[in-house]
Amino acid sequence: MSWLENSILARMGVAGGRPGRTHALTEARQGRYHYVYGPYAEPVLTIEPGDVVVAETHDAFEGKIRSETDRPSEVLRFPYLNPQNGPIFVKGAEKGDCLAVHIKDIRPRGPQPVGTTCLITEFGGLVATGATALLNKPLPEKVKKLHVTVEEGVKWSDKITLPYEPFIGTIGTSPEIEAISSLVPDYYGGNMDLPDVAPGAVIYLPVNREGALLYLGDCHAIQGDGELCGVALEHPTHTTVQVDLIKDWTIAWPRLETEAFFMTIGSGRPMEDAARIAYRELVRWMASDWDFDEHEAYLLLTQCGKVRVGNMVDPKYTLGASIKRSIVGEPKGR
Amino acid sequence: MSWLENSILARMGVAGGRPGRTHALTEARQGRYHYVYGPYAEPVLTIEPGDVVVAETHDAFEGKIRSETDRPSEVLRFPYLNPQNGPIFVKGAEKGDCLAVHIKDIRPRGPQPVGTTCLITEFGGLVATGATALLNKPLPEKVKKLHVTVEEGVKWSDKITLPYEPFIGTIGTSPEIEAISSLVPDYYGGNMDLPDVAPGAVIYLPVNREGALLYLGDCHAIQGDGELCGVALEHPTHTTVQVDLIKDWTIAWPRLETEAFFMTIGSGRPMEDAARIAYRELVRWMASDWDFDEHEAYLLLTQCGKVRVGNMVDPKYTLGASIKRSIVGEPKGR
Amino acid sequence: MSWLENSILARMGVAGGRPGRTHALTEARQGRYHYVYGPYAEPVLTIEPGDVVVAETHDAFEGKIRSETDRPSEVLRFPYLNPQNGPIFVKGAEKGDCLAVHIKDIRPRGPQPVGTTCLITEFGGLVATGATALLNKPLPEKVKKLHVTVEEGVKWSDKITLPYEPFIGTIGTSPEIEAISSLVPDYYGGNMDLPDVAPGAVIYLPVNREGALLYLGDCHAIQGDGELCGVALEHPTHTTVQVDLIKDWTIAWPRLETEAFFMTIGSGRPMEDAARIAYRELVRWMASDWDFDEHEAYLLLTQCGKVRVGNMVDPKYTLGASIKRSIVGEPKGR
Amino acid sequence: MSWLENSILARMGVAGGRPGRTHALTEARQGRYHYVYGPYAEPVLTIEPGDVVVAETHDAFEGKIRSETDRPSEVLRFPYLNPQNGPIFVKGAEKGDCLAVHIKDIRPRGPQPVGTTCLITEFGGLVATGATALLNKPLPEKVKKLHVTVEEGVKWSDKITLPYEPFIGTIGTSPEIEAISSLVPDYYGGNMDLPDVAPGAVIYLPVNREGALLYLGDCHAIQGDGELCGVALEHPTHTTVQVDLIKDWTIAWPRLETEAFFMTIGSGRPMEDAARIAYRELVRWMASDWDFDEHEAYLLLTQCGKVRVGNMVDPKYTLGASIKRSIVGEPKGR
Repeated sequence: MSWLENSILARMGVAGGRPGRTHALTEARQGRYHYVYGPYAEPVLTIEPGDVVVAETHDAFEGKIRSETDRPSEVLRFPYLNPQNGPIFVKGAEKGDCLAVHIKDIRPRGPQPVGTTCLITEFGGLVATGATALLNKPLPEKVKKLHVTVEEGVKWSDKITLPYEPFIGTIGTSPEIEAISSLVPDYYGGNMDLPDVAPGAVIYLPVNREGALLYLGDCHAIQGDGELCGVALEHPTHTTVQVDLIKDWTIAWPRLETEAFFMTIGSGRPMEDAARIAYRELVRWMASDWDFDEHEAYLLLTQCGKVRVGNMVDPKYTLGASIKRSIVGEPKGR
Repeated sequence: MSWLENSILARMGVAGGRPGRTHALTEARQGRYHYVYGPYAEPVLTIEPGDVVVAETHDAFEGKIRSETDRPSEVLRFPYLNPQNGPIFVKGAEKGDCLAVHIKDIRPRGPQPVGTTCLITEFGGLVATGATALLNKPLPEKVKKLHVTVEEGVKWSDKITLPYEPFIGTIGTSPEIEAISSLVPDYYGGNMDLPDVAPGAVIYLPVNREGALLYLGDCHAIQGDGELCGVALEHPTHTTVQVDLIKDWTIAWPRLETEAFFMTIGSGRPMEDAARIAYRELVRWMASDWDFDEHEAYLLLTQCGKVRVGNMVDPKYTLGASIKRSIVGEPKGR
Repeated sequence: MSWLENSILARMGVAGGRPGRTHALTEARQGRYHYVYGPYAEPVLTIEPGDVVVAETHDAFEGKIRSETDRPSEVLRFPYLNPQNGPIFVKGAEKGDCLAVHIKDIRPRGPQPVGTTCLITEFGGLVATGATALLNKPLPEKVKKLHVTVEEGVKWSDKITLPYEPFIGTIGTSPEIEAISSLVPDYYGGNMDLPDVAPGAVIYLPVNREGALLYLGDCHAIQGDGELCGVALEHPTHTTVQVDLIKDWTIAWPRLETEAFFMTIGSGRPMEDAARIAYRELVRWMASDWDFDEHEAYLLLTQCGKVRVGNMVDPKYTLGASIKRSIVGEPKGR
Repeated sequence: MSWLENSILARMGVAGGRPGRTHALTEARQGRYHYVYGPYAEPVLTIEPGDVVVAETHDAFEGKIRSETDRPSEVLRFPYLNPQNGPIFVKGAEKGDCLAVHIKDIRPRGPQPVGTTCLITEFGGLVATGATALLNKPLPEKVKKLHVTVEEGVKWSDKITLPYEPFIGTIGTSPEIEAISSLVPDYYGGNMDLPDVAPGAVIYLPVNREGALLYLGDCHAIQGDGELCGVALEHPTHTTVQVDLIKDWTIAWPRLETEAFFMTIGSGRPMEDAARIAYRELVRWMASDWDFDEHEAYLLLTQCGKVRVGNMVDPKYTLGASIKRSIVGEPKGR
């Protein structure tokens, strides 16, 4: 038996973790992609809990960076960045529920070189930016276009080949009344750029209004901790997710489950605030679903909690805090 | 001659700083107040540059905290907080222009006690919050209702009377495609909670889309630097502003002009990032409109720049950086 | 009667605020200046509470930047920066006491041009630094040497003259067992770069070990809020202070009193942490010495607290939080 | 052949990575332990490059927390915390050199229960502290004493057993003229609380003055990322290190090498500043010792850099940034 059959998704999901109908969210079906997470766009799909969606995602630049001689400052136009598929309306979802998204598969889409990374002016973790506003001159722009395949990974240079380790950079639900740039991560998910949001994992997202309105996009072929220059190995994909619904499970921030661990995800600035959110959520989760005393959970995480830095470049930084399943065991039933 | 007649507003405004028609934006005319700054609401007014608007603003709680025995956690419902008048469509305004708003008058509105301040659970500058997420228990809730008049100020206690020093806590234009909570300050203005946005001043705001879509609300009877507990002396008002338009003046962040100084306003986290934004904008402004070398401006501000802390409690902190008119002189014409 | 005669210094000081003997702390008497605040150096003076010291201070560069063609990177050698007079041993001072230093006078010393400001590589509030470590190239070095007199102020340029508004940039007591760079501000004072530490004010400093071991130096002819580029208008001075002792007044951070206000001073990173320290200390001071309920003080400061940004460039940022004497009245006697 | 034989230590060390004489740094030989990293204490040992030291370290509380009913606030006295062995004078070490410390072994010392963790008032990552100063009431104090052995690990509770994963919490060299609390991490090492400083690793430390003056202590039996409550599983140990010297290798911050990766270590506040330092040092290291173009290294780390959060509780936060040996290959010779 796979761990998945005993996951929170399987035990609490309306569809019990069983896949329903499959929907092809092609470019044609999507039509216009979206640049905000909000309730003001028409759903492109309406699905039942358990349904599977195969989305044709664009890369974060909507394919506009075509060669290594393109200049990002010339071909990109803020705020029309990081195009998202969706919104997907999930029947039965109401504010206070939780969306459980099982990521089943991600694979590159389109002609090679399919991968893009680059230096963008005044953006990135080791440069002055619009948010950390300084007088230093910016770095020069630079683009790399790379071959990416599932089998051979990423050929970075003659000497260096990197594995294909894809994940969804941006995924989340609509805020209740806000419409927020797809460049931002927050309590509803969004541009978390957290490599754990990968095939095999289940991500749990708060539902803030009827239908949940799921968005996703911005898949990365591989990314280091922090997404240092701000641009991972961006690529268009076929991304397959199974979307289930957990009624009356109200979570404040995204959570994630894998065979190995349970994780809570926080986004904020400064970075310690993202870490505090993630760890406080984990303490509270251990208290509610494993019956820990809060202070005992705090002491235990001091000894064995793990932190993953998702991004240190977006409008809010994202960190995941986790505890191993082998230490904490299974959450109690509901 | 008043300084105003030689202000940037007067010299560059489409209406030359001269008042046009006056519009009464009453509660009835406003109808539903708004909780986001965005382009998805219908304008409640369409005005010409130079027109004057007298707005009936609500307090930040829309009047729901009626007595000192009310509990904020029971009567307030997130995200329906900080109700805003608007949006006001300004004819001729296009992306890349600048809105110039001269604040002419603010006075209390409605039955006494008209002023409200309070401690709200997990909100404020000296407590653990949702953003600075800790395990400490929250402070108890507490409400103070206070008489506020223009003439007598604020009777805080038997021993302490504070002056009436009103200003607009939240004012700004719509983002291009985002709709952002009225609790947030950012490049378009919003919930800056900066006491310099007061009668007599002119605030300059970036226009991000056609018509600018001006919102305002959240007037404070008085506020200290930082708005420490997060709730200034909130009160409903009649607020009078004259709204002019400066074509083709593209500014990245709000600016402000008074008889005494020129100010740039930055919002961000951590607080030093707000300060950096404000000061970098001031350096750039001095370079473009007073012909300073950037490094010379940087050195001069080191000796005589002033910083005002607006808020240290909102989703982004707001600071203003300024230089005295007596030091820098008048900006060059355009 | 001057406010000083009713100050905390006068009411609580061992010498009752009355001046004692005057000591000339000349360059010769000082001998080697110091670059750390610590207990490992021999006192250069031993004084009684109430004694007055006239110190010949160096500028922050110990006079090594002699002309506008000097390059800071060539003439300065870290960590031998920001030379301090002292330590001064105050008889009777023990851990848990408080040193009260009344700043009586500061005036320029030595041949003109006596003032120096400059851009130092990878140092300052609007550039990448060793602490905010980025890949951007540094700004070019730049030095300005300026005439500074009490009467005529600072001739910045043909168009701009700035007033002479001197203060002590660095002043404090020794930590108990640490010896910390004179570039750092912290709970014991140090490099606060706060313009309120000016003639007329009384600064209160925690005593951490026998004799207090007072250090001071780094006087500025004028400085803006934040000391933006990191180098105020540095100048050597004759600085006159009267040093009194308050027994058994244990304060956690420096405090300051003027005719107009009471201030608490915090230093930390990020900047909001400095603000929190300063404001929490002020809340606690209002609770202990004015009998405020802590939450009432918190609410009142929300309406009328003031914040001064000292520096946003040193290893810790420094902010002062204050409340007007006219609002809060006199502290209770002890 | 072990990776160690081809390590930087082996290739560049004065002793070529070969162990010399072994010194027992017993409690008796140590005498007084130290609470600052500085040059003002007499060396307890003088050694040759290559020599091995077996140190009897105390736990961070010097054994004063003896039972679960002890209250930290009663038995601990700031600043006499985190006692350190040393200083150890390394012959031939001069400013600008690098100390290479190979950690060979750590094992528990003394009677069981040998491990201690606890909640300390106003200290920790999820509570208000002296640095993040708030008005919330502190958590209650709480102590856990635990059996710790190499073979059986840590028996946390009936259900939970944790592995023994020891490392050195605090290790570093003396600053040139400062003496800094052993609670602080910085460019010279100190209280980094980074779990990678573990048996098998080589840590490289800047030498700031003659003899280097190595200190170490504060070994942890296990610790999660961030050392969440501020107190890992503290325990007294026998810790064995081999200390070699690399002449004329001037590094700005600590570095670390294992069989699997190369790491740079940064400490600062806010947390992003620690991350920036660590990553910038790694970019610079890749440029100097692997001949990467700096911008190419920046892009590559974006795809495959790893971040380890050491502590989010100390006066500065510590993060390590690393790249796998399998990706980057061996550094060039010198």
